[in-house]
Amino acid sequence: MSGNTFGTLFTVTTFGESHGPAIGCVIDGCPPGMALSEADIQPELDRRRPGTSRHVTQRQEPDTVEILSGVYEGKTTGTPIALLIRNQDQRSKDYGNILDTFRPGHADYTYWHKYGIRDPRGGGRSSARLTAPVVGAAAIAKKWLFEKYGTTFKGCMSQLGEIAIPFESWEHVPNNPFFAANAAIIPQLEQYMDALRKDGDSIGARIDVVAQNVPVGLGEPIYDKLDAEIAFALMGINAVKGVEIGAGFRSVAQKGSEHGDALTPEGFVGNNAGGILGGISTGQDITASIAIKPTSSIRTPRPSIDKDGNPIAVETFGRHDPCVGIRATPIAEAMLALVLMDHALRHRAQCGDVKVDTPQLR
Amino acid sequence: MSGNTFGTLFTVTTFGESHGPAIGCVIDGCPPGMALSEADIQPELDRRRPGTSRHVTQRQEPDTVEILSGVYEGKTTGTPIALLIRNQDQRSKDYGNILDTFRPGHADYTYWHKYGIRDPRGGGRSSARLTAPVVGAAAIAKKWLFEKYGTTFKGCMSQLGEIAIPFESWEHVPNNPFFAANAAIIPQLEQYMDALRKDGDSIGARIDVVAQNVPVGLGEPIYDKLDAEIAFALMGINAVKGVEIGAGFRSVAQKGSEHGDALTPEGFVGNNAGGILGGISTGQDITASIAIKPTSSIRTPRPSIDKDGNPIAVETFGRHDPCVGIRATPIAEAMLALVLMDHALRHRAQCGDVKVDTPQLR
Amino acid sequence: MSGNTFGTLFTVTTFGESHGPAIGCVIDGCPPGMALSEADIQPELDRRRPGTSRHVTQRQEPDTVEILSGVYEGKTTGTPIALLIRNQDQRSKDYGNILDTFRPGHADYTYWHKYGIRDPRGGGRSSARLTAPVVGAAAIAKKWLFEKYGTTFKGCMSQLGEIAIPFESWEHVPNNPFFAANAAIIPQLEQYMDALRKDGDSIGARIDVVAQNVPVGLGEPIYDKLDAEIAFALMGINAVKGVEIGAGFRSVAQKGSEHGDALTPEGFVGNNAGGILGGISTGQDITASIAIKPTSSIRTPRPSIDKDGNPIAVETFGRHDPCVGIRATPIAEAMLALVLMDHALRHRAQCGDVKVDTPQLR
Amino acid sequence: MSGNTFGTLFTVTTFGESHGPAIGCVIDGCPPGMALSEADIQPELDRRRPGTSRHVTQRQEPDTVEILSGVYEGKTTGTPIALLIRNQDQRSKDYGNILDTFRPGHADYTYWHKYGIRDPRGGGRSSARLTAPVVGAAAIAKKWLFEKYGTTFKGCMSQLGEIAIPFESWEHVPNNPFFAANAAIIPQLEQYMDALRKDGDSIGARIDVVAQNVPVGLGEPIYDKLDAEIAFALMGINAVKGVEIGAGFRSVAQKGSEHGDALTPEGFVGNNAGGILGGISTGQDITASIAIKPTSSIRTPRPSIDKDGNPIAVETFGRHDPCVGIRATPIAEAMLALVLMDHALRHRAQCGDVKVDTPQLR
Repeated sequence: MSGNTFGTLFTVTTFGESHGPAIGCVIDGCPPGMALSEADIQPELDRRRPGTSRHVTQRQEPDTVEILSGVYEGKTTGTPIALLIRNQDQRSKDYGNILDTFRPGHADYTYWHKYGIRDPRGGGRSSARLTAPVVGAAAIAKKWLFEKYGTTFKGCMSQLGEIAIPFESWEHVPNNPFFAANAAIIPQLEQYMDALRKDGDSIGARIDVVAQNVPVGLGEPIYDKLDAEIAFALMGINAVKGVEIGAGFRSVAQKGSEHGDALTPEGFVGNNAGGILGGISTGQDITASIAIKPTSSIRTPRPSIDKDGNPIAVETFGRHDPCVGIRATPIAEAMLALVLMDHALRHRAQCGDVKVDTPQLR
Repeated sequence: MSGNTFGTLFTVTTFGESHGPAIGCVIDGCPPGMALSEADIQPELDRRRPGTSRHVTQRQEPDTVEILSGVYEGKTTGTPIALLIRNQDQRSKDYGNILDTFRPGHADYTYWHKYGIRDPRGGGRSSARLTAPVVGAAAIAKKWLFEKYGTTFKGCMSQLGEIAIPFESWEHVPNNPFFAANAAIIPQLEQYMDALRKDGDSIGARIDVVAQNVPVGLGEPIYDKLDAEIAFALMGINAVKGVEIGAGFRSVAQKGSEHGDALTPEGFVGNNAGGILGGISTGQDITASIAIKPTSSIRTPRPSIDKDGNPIAVETFGRHDPCVGIRATPIAEAMLALVLMDHALRHRAQCGDVKVDTPQLR
Repeated sequence: MSGNTFGTLFTVTTFGESHGPAIGCVIDGCPPGMALSEADIQPELDRRRPGTSRHVTQRQEPDTVEILSGVYEGKTTGTPIALLIRNQDQRSKDYGNILDTFRPGHADYTYWHKYGIRDPRGGGRSSARLTAPVVGAAAIAKKWLFEKYGTTFKGCMSQLGEIAIPFESWEHVPNNPFFAANAAIIPQLEQYMDALRKDGDSIGARIDVVAQNVPVGLGEPIYDKLDAEIAFALMGINAVKGVEIGAGFRSVAQKGSEHGDALTPEGFVGNNAGGILGGISTGQDITASIAIKPTSSIRTPRPSIDKDGNPIAVETFGRHDPCVGIRATPIAEAMLALVLMDHALRHRAQCGDVKVDTPQLR
Repeated sequence: MSGNTFGTLFTVTTFGESHGPAIGCVIDGCPPGMALSEADIQPELDRRRPGTSRHVTQRQEPDTVEILSGVYEGKTTGTPIALLIRNQDQRSKDYGNILDTFRPGHADYTYWHKYGIRDPRGGGRSSARLTAPVVGAAAIAKKWLFEKYGTTFKGCMSQLGEIAIPFESWEHVPNNPFFAANAAIIPQLEQYMDALRKDGDSIGARIDVVAQNVPVGLGEPIYDKLDAEIAFALMGINAVKGVEIGAGFRSVAQKGSEHGDALTPEGFVGNNAGGILGGISTGQDITASIAIKPTSSIRTPRPSIDKDGNPIAVETFGRHDPCVGIRATPIAEAMLALVLMDHALRHRAQCGDVKVDTPQLR
């Protein structure tokens, strides 16, 4: 009820604060018998961890994961899998000056009003650091989906501020700090970020994610539609303000004769649907896109108030990502994977296992 | 698990198919002691019902609601409230020709693959007709939220195909069939729809919704964030392909110094946040916007396949909305109201009742 | 949250009050493709309906069920199945005298304190009449479990007040109004009930239920154990005060060497476990037993208070079952069936379909 | 869905295996602002920990708890509270001989069939060791309920094998290793256990638990009744085979005129109800009683089979409780506390906070 569990059949319950002793999660519902060790999880955590380039927060966190349960002799047993990540590099004093004030655009104000108390160290529970356990949990979901259906996940940044990043090839993504699917544009992005950092400001970004080799039939007809769940999962990522599936907002100006993807014996023609019709996967690629707002913790002073309602100018020091979008790609992939994993199990419950050997259109 | 229940503490479980004997829902969790009769619910159903102008489906459904339980001597008792709407105007033969084929852009294909069986009459469960019980349930939520916090809900169409509809005043909305907050543009919209209908085609639309007088503190920090739940609720409406909160996709090109809404003793300056920070309501207006794709059932023939995989040209007859967006405004308001109602109760559970007498910023 | 939904994957959400317009339920999660009509459900409703002998309430309710959704051309479609039963024989005036007083042993007092309002007509929501929709829903579960695994359900009364009813044969159960598995004892039971009715008093009973041909492996290791879920389901039946699984309270005085059912290549020796070990079904018969308290609505005057706290003597008129245990057998079977159905689907989700062709011990 | 979360609004998700690196839990939904530290939790863990007398397992586990999250400057923040307990004294080789065989009365057989894999070390997840995190979580619930309503929890063993233990006074309970509310009987119990241990056998027990100062109005009318939830919680404890509320199985032979507790202006007369009517608390003491079967791991050889179905004699070595009932009292109290905590929050959600200043009957 308090919202810290994601999923219905494959559930991830996270805990922890940015500067507390540890963060982690409990994964319940993982099918038994899958080979699993820390080595399957750590690489995904490494993709999102801080401190890997000058364009992200300089906090040094190895994010080393420990599996506490649910695995016996290298295989999942069907019981809960707990992941633990000890926090290492907390400099809580960095945040001392925001204890009694509210950063514009930040959760400070709302936490204070909701709970009457908040952990101000590094944003406490509202920190994007809390996406780490989710990325860990999703590594397990990705592995299962790949072994079972061949499903894979990809993502890239498609816009940084006003700079559109044309898609060239997925192969570029791991070779630059922006998760850009384009090599030539990297110097421009670096120059842009360097200037921004110098100004003490931050910027938004757009991220695209794709799931491939998705079985047909995942999702529910009403409410728990696959697209609704993806919107829930992606909008729930820190700083996200918009979600599109397939043609997204372009659909507004499309006619029915243009939008509806024709079916042919060889497959679908086009993918305005983003791989989902009536809330259920079609077997095509599932495509989604998200808008990420600029980081609210910036050095530039801004007008705000303190707890007593007095006007004050807020400046934030400490270590922050000038563009939270830069590290968001693996997180968006992770959320998409958790949604598909959950619906794969839901499909099994009501309809039996997905028949992947049936001819399916792509 | 099969997705037909919306909400966690104020739950709405719907049932029914477009051309079955009846549609309806069971609402669980309504606080006791609130005055309630069919007269509180029927007006909201009338706002979304079909057949009210030439621009929507000509199916004639009075959508008369009957309360079957949960009310005693005109007051809610705290037990489940069941709403029943008998279907009246089913012409199932209209749909006979789509029994064995799949309409491009329609749920036909995915239902068939998921369940191995589908009710083809009027789209069965995938019909937008199933939004009627939700609108009925939301009338109850709206009443409670208004009586408790003064919360109100408004919505309008802000774009029809390529025609942007400038906002003038909420007062125009009930006076035209488009839910447009603009009087002067109506002739242009009517002309556009007449041409479209003549062509046997359909079109998308953009809808904006707002909740006003929302108490501060609704929502959860992680996963079940208020914005994530709104995205889930709105993306789950038939034909929605995109959701924005506040500045939405405009956030991508905004700097932190521009996006973060400043706080002053007199209130917030700007509302890029859309009334939500860190997943929790700020007390400002909650603003959201959705993209609705064009109706997939159109007269224009399109290439498709039949169940055996043979190529075929599909034309759809029967009565359809040429722009499902036209009737989507009350539905979007309804979903927003259900989310806020649910989180109002969740807030009470964990933090006690919202203190509406505390000075709050707007 | 308000408790009116039973189950997690096969969910039954009921609504209605004893003397309201209708009672019913929505069943979500039923697998698609199963043949289903009212004829599959009505016989189970007929087993529990009132007015069938002089030993039960004389209220005349045909309990005719209507399927409102989820079935197309005689087969389930995977969408929610709504069942509707219109109330026919309400004589609300019978209950007028209990409006402002609290019957000892009845929910009057607690409803009043919890909600500040209660529907006093026939006990409102607290009436055992609300078990009718559950019995209807369970008919669907029973059918699916039988077609899939050959699972069957049986029950009988094993004690009426102080009269133990020795088990002779299941074949006697449908041939007497007590659901007794014994023919010779019926005259004694009838005489006992006649005397009791004459005295204006009521009496408790003990009911045994059994599920046979249960696949091995249903249930979860912790919390949602199969036995815990059965205890939840059975204790939730009106008037139940105790639940036993297998040896039940006899286990207290057993030694480990006596209690543990030995395994042999030919099967288990004994069934102290009641078919469940570690919360998971063994494949043996699942056996449970419940204690049902005497009806609280009796003619005999008893001391009580009114809403203002004044002492008063309460006599109840109206039509009541002098032993609610008499009609409880089909209800207990129904609850057991719902639990097994839910766990059959849960097993499919996490572990894939139960392998019924593997050699299993019984 | 996989059952490792207890509760709906105050949820406890546990993880861990008997001989894995750690056990623990995540508690979600704790109200903010309550003072909390390890010192509030450790004493409850100490009550149930092993190795404290010769009558329980000799495994040495300090069960030192660490709070990983959800507390800031000594107060709860409303975010998840994670508890971690590292396992210390694992001697996995003790269990080597049961790897390929099934102990009669043990979960070995069912886990193997359900998952196709099991962690045999110390019973893995089926070990009663997994009740430790629950007891820790319940310490938090007990603290909140006491501070809010003055609610307290007590429990005692009322029968050991065939020896009934007459209730004398709660003050005896902490002064003997059996949690007996009777001082004079202790030598008899010790002698009984010594003889049993010498025989390599085990024995059952009966435990009573009570909650006092419970507010009126907790619980739901149907399904999630307070008594049904208590039955679920208590039957879910390892080795429990029966649950009674109030008069329990004695109700079977009671007449309505005897069973229904009369109300007077001064309070209830009697408590056959066990403090619950119609699924909702009356304000009286809530009383429940459970039957605990004898430990299934005993030294005495018993007939069983191995994985291949061959007959075999099983003897269990290692360290086991000869009567799991001995340490069950604090566990039963813990489960009862978790149920009441959950329903206290549920009451707030739907009906607002419980009014404890209203005059209530006891």
